[in-house]
Order: sequence, then structure tokens, then C-alpha cells
Amino acid sequence: MEAYLDNSSTTKVFDEVGQLMIKTMETDYGNPSSMHLKGVEAEKYIKQSAGKIAKILKVDEKEILFTSGGTESNNHAIIGTAMANRRAGNHIITTSVEHASVLSTMAFLEEQGFKVTYLPVDENGVIRISDLKEAICDDTILISVMYVNNEVGAIMPINDIARVIEEKKPDIIFHVDAIQAFGKLEIYPRRLHIDLLSVSGHKIHGPKGVGFLYIKDKTKIKPLIFGGGQQKGMRSGTENVPGIAGIGCAAELVYDGLSSKIEKLYALKDYMIDKLSEMDHVKINSRKGYDGAPQIVNASFVGVRSEVLLHALEDRKIYVSAGSACSTNKHVVSATLKSMGLKNEEIESAVRFSFCINTTKEEIDYAIDAIKELLPMLRLYRRK
Amino acid sequence: MEAYLDNSSTTKVFDEVGQLMIKTMETDYGNPSSMHLKGVEAEKYIKQSAGKIAKILKVDEKEILFTSGGTESNNHAIIGTAMANRRAGNHIITTSVEHASVLSTMAFLEEQGFKVTYLPVDENGVIRISDLKEAICDDTILISVMYVNNEVGAIMPINDIARVIEEKKPDIIFHVDAIQAFGKLEIYPRRLHIDLLSVSGHKIHGPKGVGFLYIKDKTKIKPLIFGGGQQKGMRSGTENVPGIAGIGCAAELVYDGLSSKIEKLYALKDYMIDKLSEMDHVKINSRKGYDGAPQIVNASFVGVRSEVLLHALEDRKIYVSAGSACSTNKHVVSATLKSMGLKNEEIESAVRFSFCINTTKEEIDYAIDAIKELLPMLRLYRRK
Repeated sequence: MEAYLDNSSTTKVFDEVGQLMIKTMETDYGNPSSMHLKGVEAEKYIKQSAGKIAKILKVDEKEILFTSGGTESNNHAIIGTAMANRRAGNHIITTSVEHASVLSTMAFLEEQGFKVTYLPVDENGVIRISDLKEAICDDTILISVMYVNNEVGAIMPINDIARVIEEKKPDIIFHVDAIQAFGKLEIYPRRLHIDLLSVSGHKIHGPKGVGFLYIKDKTKIKPLIFGGGQQKGMRSGTENVPGIAGIGCAAELVYDGLSSKIEKLYALKDYMIDKLSEMDHVKINSRKGYDGAPQIVNASFVGVRSEVLLHALEDRKIYVSAGSACSTNKHVVSATLKSMGLKNEEIESAVRFSFCINTTKEEIDYAIDAIKELLPMLRLYRRK
Repeated sequence: MEAYLDNSSTTKVFDEVGQLMIKTMETDYGNPSSMHLKGVEAEKYIKQSAGKIAKILKVDEKEILFTSGGTESNNHAIIGTAMANRRAGNHIITTSVEHASVLSTMAFLEEQGFKVTYLPVDENGVIRISDLKEAICDDTILISVMYVNNEVGAIMPINDIARVIEEKKPDIIFHVDAIQAFGKLEIYPRRLHIDLLSVSGHKIHGPKGVGFLYIKDKTKIKPLIFGGGQQKGMRSGTENVPGIAGIGCAAELVYDGLSSKIEKLYALKDYMIDKLSEMDHVKINSRKGYDGAPQIVNASFVGVRSEVLLHALEDRKIYVSAGSACSTNKHVVSATLKSMGLKNEEIESAVRFSFCINTTKEEIDYAIDAIKELLPMLRLYRRK
């Protein structure tokens, strides 16, 4: 048996997505910028994909900008907004638990003279609204907060953040990194007063190398990549037609009957948390039920280093993640777990299990049984 | 019959490339940053692709940086070099006939306070080395010149440019946009003293949405996109494994027995130029033989607007380009043809035919016959 429980790192691409991509590469392979029929055909795929995504988000298809992935979406949202609104102010607010594609971009902007406030989180990985209120000042131009934390599945209070912006300084641009939320929650940027929303293809059974950024109409933002003026000048370069067709197809498939899929995921999550809670010296870092995302269970197996358990599970074809796998594979201490106030021994033994809509109870049972069997042995042989 | 003669816009993806991409999406779909086996498997595709490309260029695989395409490669080369070498100087040299992904990036840098010299070209679309020598000053940090012009196929004197740099100011970084040259010429960056070389996947029967930038070891350059530190921190974001595997596969297939494929292309080009030269009021804007690239024939059909001929040919399933198709499809006057000193009536009637290694003599004959038949009719009905 095999249990791929690392779906927040990346997912298996749907067959339908692969087949559609092949069609755009071998039959309808034109350049969308070409004037002739082959160009027009290729352009249709882009329009259709934007249409599918716009329908899911209940926004206009003109508000969907295709990028090379979640990292570019986050970079574009943050740098593009900062550069376009520099005259209005130089202060940005984010959190201490964002993904590296946000935190590293903030560090770049600090080098460029911007001031960045990093909001702390509570023991559940969630910011406090009172901290946010205090941080907002006349110079604040951008607030960037993730929807679902990639390490523990904490859900940020997006609605409350939007309300604070509305009350205190409505011209602040609100960016939400929804890379771990899209395909797991119903997200309506307009209702949530979100101006910019980042999504990645390969987290939702779409291809790697493509993502999108929802940009609310009339948001002041600059391009990051210059050239032939594709996508209304906001992102030059021949459009990645196979990837764009693929992400649209994947989004449509994922959102088809989403609520029942998600209920299944919540049940799996709670089941796994219950099983893990029965074990000795296991600390659960994710919340049960609707207080956390449906697809992530993070747990510390005190006394066993993350990588040791990861590789022991790998031998049984159980694939999990130690900390966030979206960074390069060298060992880095998790900023999220540290910010949540975990002890070092809990941080160093944390493992993330992440599900997709095809994950089964059998896979969870298989993983639980393996952990039960492995833990005593691994604890016995641990380095003192 | 169908004749796709717009291969400099984009090409049909090789079957082998598509199949390999499917494999990386549906079987070996791991995240290269994951510590477990699925991550290691995915990482292998990247290493193998870099290895294949490095072998073709006779460079080290560590010198290959994967990007989201030719436009990002050019943006990264130019902005990344400018930002990293700002203290050494603020002067950049390029040409007036570069692709929009270079010219628009230069315009962005001018806004940032850099000075850019645009070298003119002669009637063949080639810069004069004397102009280059004059332009180099103490502040020059970067020279960016395309290898093969995308509109007319003019070949720039890359070797001579490198020699001038070596003589006058060896610390100048030399960037070559090889997007229309890779797969059509043997290119050895080390022998040519090239520091940075841009390539796109979809011009060589690889997928759209992927490209690479050769970066000579120790070249001072900064990243454009920040995040998890993938590709040694030079280009963050989960690697586009399908695209990366695809471009490596395509490059290997194209370069297998390249010289005989190219001889065939030269013969086709010269054949088409001869046939077009026999027609009245047709001006050939590309050079015969080795003085120009093997895959591009640009010709002005005086008295018929480009788009009119393009659409008339389209009706017969002959696909060509009016000016450069890499820009968005609104009509823009070609900067290349203007710089070459063509008259307005020649610029407005210019059409580009571009071949790939699978183009046949039958397709050329089919196009020539169609043009012969269409021209008198279209000239008769043209707007006075």
C-alpha cells in the first residue's frame, strides 16, 4: 500500500488536466498573440480558463491574471502594489507565519526602504485583530495575510481583517495568499473585500508552473515582468496555454460538488487527530473541525526528529512533510511553530500530514498503524 | 493541405515531450523540495534536463537557471544584472531591434535611473561594431544583444561584440537573447564569451511557460522572484517539473543531428527567397544563405497590407505572421524594419514566414502558389 499524505506540498495532476494540456501542445498549439486562426484558438483556452475561475470566485474574468505559480503571484501582489503606491506610503503589514514567498519578498522591500510590521500569532497560529488595529498607520498601503497556514492549517480571520481595513483605512490594499485555501474553502473575494488573491495550480491537481492572481478591477498595481504586453500589459510573455488551460480545468473539477468533498476531508482530519491524540507524547498542532483547514494535520512526535520519522514512513511508502516542504529541502526551523510558542523539542519533531480530495480512510489507518509501530522503536534509538 | 509557417511565433510540441510531461504530472508528481522519495524523483527530472542542455551548450549544468519562459529570462538577465552591478555603473548598451521583452525592460530601467544606448542597425538589420566601440564608456555594465532577429532573421556579430568587450572593458556583462537562435545554430557561450544567454521552450517544440537562462559561473546577478530559495535562491517557486523536463527533452531532440536539419532549412529558405524574388513588387527583407538565420523569410508585398495577405493565406490554411507575433495582436509598426530603413509601404506590407525542422518543400510550394494567385487580386482591391 501507498499513502501520499503530502498534498499541501504538491498534488497528482488530474487525468483530464493532462489530456487537455496535451491537446493545447500538439493540436491547438498556436501562439495566443498570433493574428491567425491558430492564435485565436489558443486564446480561447485562456479566456475559457479565466471564465471558469471567475465563476468559482464570483468575479469578472478580466480580473484573473495568470502567473507562473503561487510564488510569482505573491511576489507580483506585494512588489507590484508597493511600487505602484509608494507615494501614498511606505508601510506594509503582514504576519510572522507567512510562506517564504511572502516573507522573502517583504525582506526585499525592506531593503528598498519600505517598513514592514510582522504581526505575531496566538497558540493556534492566528493573528489577533487588536494587534492589527494597532499596527495600521497613515503610511500603511498594503496588508498581506495568508488564508490558510501551509504548516498547521490555521485559518486567518480574513473577514475581520477586511472589516478593520474598511473602518480604519479603506484605501489599504488587501492581499490574501490563498494558495492553501483555494479548493478547500468557498472564497468570494468581493464579499470578503479582498483586492488581491494568490492561487497556485499544483496544489489543486493542476500543473506546476502556473498560478493566478485575482486583481480587483482598478487596483493600483504594477507589472513585474516586461515585454510584449500580453495580459493587458500586466504580465508579458507568451501565455503558458497548457498550464492556463490546466489550472482552469483543475479548478472546475475541484469545485464541482466541493462541499461534500470538504466534509469528507474534515471527517478524515478529525479521525486522524483523534487517533494521534491517543498516543503518548504526541502534541497536535492543528485544530479539529471548522477552526482549522480540512486538509492539514500537524503533530509533534516528541522524542523523534521529524526527518527520522519522515524517512521511516517513506520506507513504507507513506509520504509526509517535515515542516514546510515549499522551502528547499535543507532543514530550517519552522517560523510558524516557533511563533505559536512551541517548545524546541516539539518543533524539531513536527510532521505535517496533508490530504487531497482523493485521500481515503484506509490511507490514514495505514499511516496510523505504521506510526504506532515505529514510534517506540525510533524513540529507543534516538540520539541522546 | 495546411502549411504552418509561423514557427518563430511558436511550434508544435514533440510527442515525446508531451508524454514525458504527462509522466511527471501523473506518476512522478512529487515536489522537488520534498525530502522523501517522491521529491527526489521529481528533482531528478530537473537535474537531467539541466544536464541535457548543459551538454548542448558545453557548459556546467549548475549554470542553467530555469525560468517561466524567454520573457522572464530576458527580464531576469537585464534587471538582475543592472540591480547587482549598480555601484559599478549605470550604463547599458542594447540595439534598436531587440524583442519587446528586452526593449520594455530597458524602458523600465531608464525609469529607475539607468542610461541605455540603443545601437542602430544597417540595411540588413545588423549593428556596426564601430558604433558599439563608441558607445562603451566607463559606466557601461551590461551589453544585451539578440543573436537572431525574430522578424527578419538577421544574425548579430556576437563573436565580434565579445571581442570588443574583451578589448575595451572585460568586466562588462554580455547578455545574448538566443530565443530565435537556440535550436538553429550551434551555440557555445564559453567560446563566445557570453555571460548570460536566454532561451525559450516553445520555440523549439517544447512547452510554453518554460525557458532557461544560462548564467556563467560567478556572474553578478540578483534574483527577480523571492521565496523558498529554490534553484539556489536565484529563482524561487516550486519548479515547473513538467515544463523543465519538456524543454530538456525538446532541446535534446532538436540538437540530435542538428547540422543536417539546418542544411535542409537553409535550402528551403533560399528556395523560397528565389521564388518570391521572381514576383513583381516583392522586396525580400531577409538575407540568403549563411548571412541570415535558416528559418526566417521576411518579405514585403508592396501594395497589400500585411494583415490582408495574412488573412487571405489563413483561408487556405497557410499560417504566417505580420511583423512580430510575439507582441499582442494589435497592429504596431515594426521597429526592426523601420530601423533597417524600409519605406512605409514596405513595412506595412511585410510578412514573416518561419520554418521548423519539420517544414517541407511541399508546404513552401503550396504557400508560393497561393501568394502568386492572391497577390494580383488583393492588389486590385486594395484601399487607395
